[in-house]
Amino acid sequence: MAKTPNRFPRLKPREDSGFSSTATGRFINKNGSPNVKRTGLSNPLEKYSWYHTLLDLPSWKFILLLVLAYILANLFFALVYYMIGIEHLTGIDKSTPLNEFTDVFFFSSQTFTTVGYGRIAPVGFLASLVATFEAFLGLLGFAIATGLFYGRFSRPRAFLKFSKNALISPYKEGSALMFRLASYKNNSLTEAQVTLIAGITTPDSPTEFFTLTTELSRINSLTLNWTVVHKIDENSPFFGDIHDFIKSSEVEIFAQIRAFDEGFANTVVQRTSYTSEELVIGARFLPMFRPSANRQTTILELDKIDDIEKVNLS
Amino acid sequence: MAKTPNRFPRLKPREDSGFSSTATGRFINKNGSPNVKRTGLSNPLEKYSWYHTLLDLPSWKFILLLVLAYILANLFFALVYYMIGIEHLTGIDKSTPLNEFTDVFFFSSQTFTTVGYGRIAPVGFLASLVATFEAFLGLLGFAIATGLFYGRFSRPRAFLKFSKNALISPYKEGSALMFRLASYKNNSLTEAQVTLIAGITTPDSPTEFFTLTTELSRINSLTLNWTVVHKIDENSPFFGDIHDFIKSSEVEIFAQIRAFDEGFANTVVQRTSYTSEELVIGARFLPMFRPSANRQTTILELDKIDDIEKVNLS
Amino acid sequence: MAKTPNRFPRLKPREDSGFSSTATGRFINKNGSPNVKRTGLSNPLEKYSWYHTLLDLPSWKFILLLVLAYILANLFFALVYYMIGIEHLTGIDKSTPLNEFTDVFFFSSQTFTTVGYGRIAPVGFLASLVATFEAFLGLLGFAIATGLFYGRFSRPRAFLKFSKNALISPYKEGSALMFRLASYKNNSLTEAQVTLIAGITTPDSPTEFFTLTTELSRINSLTLNWTVVHKIDENSPFFGDIHDFIKSSEVEIFAQIRAFDEGFANTVVQRTSYTSEELVIGARFLPMFRPSANRQTTILELDKIDDIEKVNLS
Amino acid sequence: MAKTPNRFPRLKPREDSGFSSTATGRFINKNGSPNVKRTGLSNPLEKYSWYHTLLDLPSWKFILLLVLAYILANLFFALVYYMIGIEHLTGIDKSTPLNEFTDVFFFSSQTFTTVGYGRIAPVGFLASLVATFEAFLGLLGFAIATGLFYGRFSRPRAFLKFSKNALISPYKEGSALMFRLASYKNNSLTEAQVTLIAGITTPDSPTEFFTLTTELSRINSLTLNWTVVHKIDENSPFFGDIHDFIKSSEVEIFAQIRAFDEGFANTVVQRTSYTSEELVIGARFLPMFRPSANRQTTILELDKIDDIEKVNLS
Repeated sequence: MAKTPNRFPRLKPREDSGFSSTATGRFINKNGSPNVKRTGLSNPLEKYSWYHTLLDLPSWKFILLLVLAYILANLFFALVYYMIGIEHLTGIDKSTPLNEFTDVFFFSSQTFTTVGYGRIAPVGFLASLVATFEAFLGLLGFAIATGLFYGRFSRPRAFLKFSKNALISPYKEGSALMFRLASYKNNSLTEAQVTLIAGITTPDSPTEFFTLTTELSRINSLTLNWTVVHKIDENSPFFGDIHDFIKSSEVEIFAQIRAFDEGFANTVVQRTSYTSEELVIGARFLPMFRPSANRQTTILELDKIDDIEKVNLS
Repeated sequence: MAKTPNRFPRLKPREDSGFSSTATGRFINKNGSPNVKRTGLSNPLEKYSWYHTLLDLPSWKFILLLVLAYILANLFFALVYYMIGIEHLTGIDKSTPLNEFTDVFFFSSQTFTTVGYGRIAPVGFLASLVATFEAFLGLLGFAIATGLFYGRFSRPRAFLKFSKNALISPYKEGSALMFRLASYKNNSLTEAQVTLIAGITTPDSPTEFFTLTTELSRINSLTLNWTVVHKIDENSPFFGDIHDFIKSSEVEIFAQIRAFDEGFANTVVQRTSYTSEELVIGARFLPMFRPSANRQTTILELDKIDDIEKVNLS
Repeated sequence: MAKTPNRFPRLKPREDSGFSSTATGRFINKNGSPNVKRTGLSNPLEKYSWYHTLLDLPSWKFILLLVLAYILANLFFALVYYMIGIEHLTGIDKSTPLNEFTDVFFFSSQTFTTVGYGRIAPVGFLASLVATFEAFLGLLGFAIATGLFYGRFSRPRAFLKFSKNALISPYKEGSALMFRLASYKNNSLTEAQVTLIAGITTPDSPTEFFTLTTELSRINSLTLNWTVVHKIDENSPFFGDIHDFIKSSEVEIFAQIRAFDEGFANTVVQRTSYTSEELVIGARFLPMFRPSANRQTTILELDKIDDIEKVNLS
Repeated sequence: MAKTPNRFPRLKPREDSGFSSTATGRFINKNGSPNVKRTGLSNPLEKYSWYHTLLDLPSWKFILLLVLAYILANLFFALVYYMIGIEHLTGIDKSTPLNEFTDVFFFSSQTFTTVGYGRIAPVGFLASLVATFEAFLGLLGFAIATGLFYGRFSRPRAFLKFSKNALISPYKEGSALMFRLASYKNNSLTEAQVTLIAGITTPDSPTEFFTLTTELSRINSLTLNWTVVHKIDENSPFFGDIHDFIKSSEVEIFAQIRAFDEGFANTVVQRTSYTSEELVIGARFLPMFRPSANRQTTILELDKIDDIEKVNLS
C-alpha cells in the first residue's frame, strides 16, 4: 500500500477498515451494503445465502414468492394426478377437460393445505401415495414459511434515519463535520456507539483510510436525534483549507451505528456512507424537536432531519 | 448547551445521556419507556414497528386482536362466497337467508383453519379458487401467529420489581441515595449492572445530566434483593443541604439494570426513573428476606420491597 | 455487615456476590439454581415465569402436560357440544349414551386438530360456531406448542459435567484447590471462563465472600477436560492449616462457567457449588483422556471424571 | 508439562489453548471440529446433543430423516389400525389384503397430516381414539419439524472460505506466515477478529502451544478478502531457519475467526487448522479482486483464493 507521507504527515492511516486502497467505486452503498461483487464459485448459487436473501426481500416480493411457489407446487401435483388418471379421484367434474383439470388442481390444493374436504378424494394406490406425499410436503412447506416469517419479523434492525447530507459546520473556535440520525420507530435503543472512517483518494495516490474521532462516540440512550460531531483539528485528515481539500480529493465517510434494542433484545447495526457530493460545506442543522403544547413531552420531528441553514465558516 | 458553572463547580456534566437539556416533561416514564413523541413521517404508520407493537401488547389485547382478525377474515371470505353464489357450495342449509349466510361463514372458517369437514364443499371454478386461496392465507396467518407467540414469550425480559421510592438514607458517616430492586420470578440473573444518571433542572438553567457513582455497580448474581447505593459525597451533585436542593431543583434519576438471564440466554434490560416527588429524605429500607423455618433456605419477601422507616439524617 | 478483621487480615471480602452474609442454608444448589424462595406477591402465580418453567420441565413432564391439555380441551368442548345437543352433529353413533359421548369427543378432537374427516360434522348455528372457535383455538394451541418446542430445544445449555468433589491437592511447592469439568456432548465451546467465589461462615461471624483466583481463568476452547486450579497461597482464604480451617468453618465454593457455544451461537452458562462435605483434602485427579488405538485421535473418558487418588499434602 | 527451555528460550508457551500437550493426532480437523472422541457415559446417546446433531446434518440427510420418520410413523399406525380391525374404518377397499393394508396406511397418513378427506374415517371407540392420538402426534411432529427448520436456517454461520495452504512469504525485511479468507455469501460481517495459535511437537518433547501475533487481529468489515499475516520475528516460534524447523517439528496452526453477522444479528465463529503438510515455504498470494469493467464496483474472485506464486525467501 503506497503511502503519501507528505499529504497527512501527522496521521496514521487505518489499516483495518477491511476495504482495500485499490478497490474501485463507492465502498459502501447509501443503504449500507458493501459495493462488492463475488465471482468464481463453481456453483453460482453458492454466493447467495438463501436465508439472508429471503430476509432482505421487500415484503411484497416475499409474499409474491410464497404465492408463486404455492401455485407452482399445485400445478405440478395436478399434472401428476392427471397423468395417474382422474378415475383415481372421486367426485371430479368430468363435464369438460378444463373442468377436469381445475378440479384436479383444486384437489391438489386441498391436499397441500391439508383442508381435505373430501368431496374429491384419492382412490387406489398411486393417487393415494402421491396425496400422502403432497400433504407431507405441504406441511413442511408451511413449516418453512413459518420459520421465514418469524425470521423476517424478528430480525433485529435499527430503524434509523440518517440526514441526507453531512455538513461542515462552525464548531467551537473552528469547524466540525456533522451528520445526524434518529430512530423513527417505537423501539428503545440504548448504548449506541458510532464508528466513523474516512476513505480519501487523490488522482495520484491510492485510497487511505482514517478513523475520524467524534466528540461523543457513545450515548446512553437514543431517544431524540443524535448529531455526530467530528471536530476538524490537527488530528483530522480534513484539517486545512476544506474547499481545496474537497476539490482535490474523493472522500467517502463510512458511519456505522451499533446499539442495543430492547424489543429484539439484541445488538442492531446500521451503516451508511457520505461521498464528496453529499458533503455540504458551511451549513448547520436546525433543531428537530420541540416541547409538546402541554409541555409534558418532547416531540421529535422526523421530517426536519434534513433541515439545514447556510452559515459562514470562520 | 448553557452551563451553570457556579452550581456544580466540581462536576463534569454527562453529555452522552441521549436526552437533551432542552427537552420537556419527564424524560423516562415510570415503566422505563422514553417520554418522546415522533412526528413528520410521510406515512404515519411508519413510526410503529408493528413487531415491537405486537410484542408490547398485553396478552388479552393480543388474543383479542387475533380473534378479531379471524372473524373479520371469515366475514370477508363469507361475503365473497356469497357473491359468487351459494349454489357453488354443496350442503348449504338454504331454509332462511340467515341460515344460508351463517353456513357460508362456517364453510369459510372450516377452510381458513383447514378443518375442511366436507359437509360443505366448494364446487365449480370460482368458489374452489377462492377456497384454495383462503386455505393458503389461513395457513400463512397461523404461521405468522406462531411466530408472534414465540416472539412474545421468548422475548427476554428482566422481571424486576423496583422500590416505589428512592431514599436519602444515613450511610457511613454521611448519607446516600438508595433504591432497591429484586427479581420476582424463577429466572436466574447473573452479572447484573446498574447505570444511574441524574437529570437536574433549575428554574433558571436547562437540564444538566450527571452520572451517579454507585458503591457496587455490578453484582455477580441477582438472587436476593439489590440495594443500589449512591454515596452523597463531594463527587455527587446532591452534596450539600439536600432539603434545599430538592426544593430548588427538579430532579429525575434514571436507573438502568442490565443482566444476563440464563433461561433466555440473553441480556435483559429494565429501566425506571425517580422524580423529585418519588424521593424520600430521611428514611431507610427494612430487611426484605429472612431464613426459612428450617433454616435450610432464604425467603425473599417481595411485598416488603417498599417497607421503609423514617430516620434522622446526621 | 460485621467484619472479622483478625480472621483474614490480608483479604478484602467480595461485596458483589449477590448473596447476603445473613442468608441461611446452602447458597447455590448442586444443580446451580439459587437456594431462595420468593413470597409476598399478591398473585402467587406471578412468581413463576411460565416460559422459564415450561423450558425447565423434564421432557416427559412437558409431553405429559401437552397430552393432558389436549384431552382436557377435548373433554371441555365435547361437553359443550353435548349440551348444545347431539342432533346438531351429523353421523353420531346414538346406540348408547357412552357411544354418543365418545363420538362427540372424537368430533371435538377432529376439529381441534383440524383433521375434520367429515363423518361427523356440525349442522346448525351453535354447533358450527363452537366448532369454528375450537378449530381456531386448536391451531393457536399448536402454534404455542411449536414455539415451546423450539424454545426448549434451541435453549442454549452448556452440557458440562463437573467432578463430584473438589480436591485439595499438592501443587507446585504448596497446595491448590482443584475441581474439573468436561463438556459431554458434541457441542463446541470456546472462550470458556470460570468465576470462583468462596463463602465462608464461622459459628461466631456471618458469611464472608472471597474471590478465588485461578491459575487459568479462561481457556480458548473446551475440547478436553478442564482442571480449574486455585493455588492456596497468602492471597487465598484457605492459607494456613487446611484441616483446622475446614473443621472450624462452613465453606461453600461457587463455580460459574461461561462459554460460547457455536451450535447455539450463544453464550452458555453453567454453575455448581461445593460445600465443606464435598471437599476432599489430600487427593489428586487421575488422567481422564488417552490416545486412541491408532493414535489418530484423543479419547475423553467421561466416566473417569471422579477418579482420584489419595496423596499426602506436603 | 515438560518444558524444552532451550528450544524457544524467548517465548512463553500458552497454557490456555484447551488442548493438552499429551493429546494425539491432529488437534482440530480441517472443518474446524475438535479431534476428540468421548466415551464412558452410561447412556451412549447422552454424548450427542440431538439438536446439535440435527443442525449439523447435511440438508439431504435431514430431509431424508423426516421422510423416513413420516413413513415409519404411518406404518406403525397402519399396523395398529389393522390390528384393531379394518371394519372400524369406513370406505376401505377390501378387494385384496394388499389394498386393505395400503388403504389403512393412507388413512393413517391422512390423519397424521390432518388432511382428513373423510373417504376413509374411523368408526367406533378404539379406532377413533388412535386417530385422535395420531392427529395430535402428527401436529406435534410438524411443530418440531418447524422448529428444526427454523433452527437450521437461522443458525448463525460465517460462510468463510479459507485458503487451502498457509504460506511462508517474504514480508517487509523478513518473512511472515500468511493465509487468507473471504466471505463467499451475501452476508455482512463486521468487527472480524482472528485468534492464531500454533501447536509445536518434536519427537522428543510434548506439544507446546504459542499465540501467534498478527499484524491486524481485527478488521472493521470483512467485505473483500483478508490476508492474515503473522510476522516471523524474534517473538515468533518460527524464528530461525524455517526449513530446518518444519523438517524437525510437527506444526499445527489453529485459526479462529469471530465476526458479527448483520443478517443473523449474531456473533459467528469459524475455525480451521493448517498442519505442516499444508504449509508452503516460499510463496505468496496473488491478488483475488479486481475492478469491474465500468470501474463502479470491485469484483472478488473466489476461485483465486488459492492462487499463489513461488518466491525466494530473503
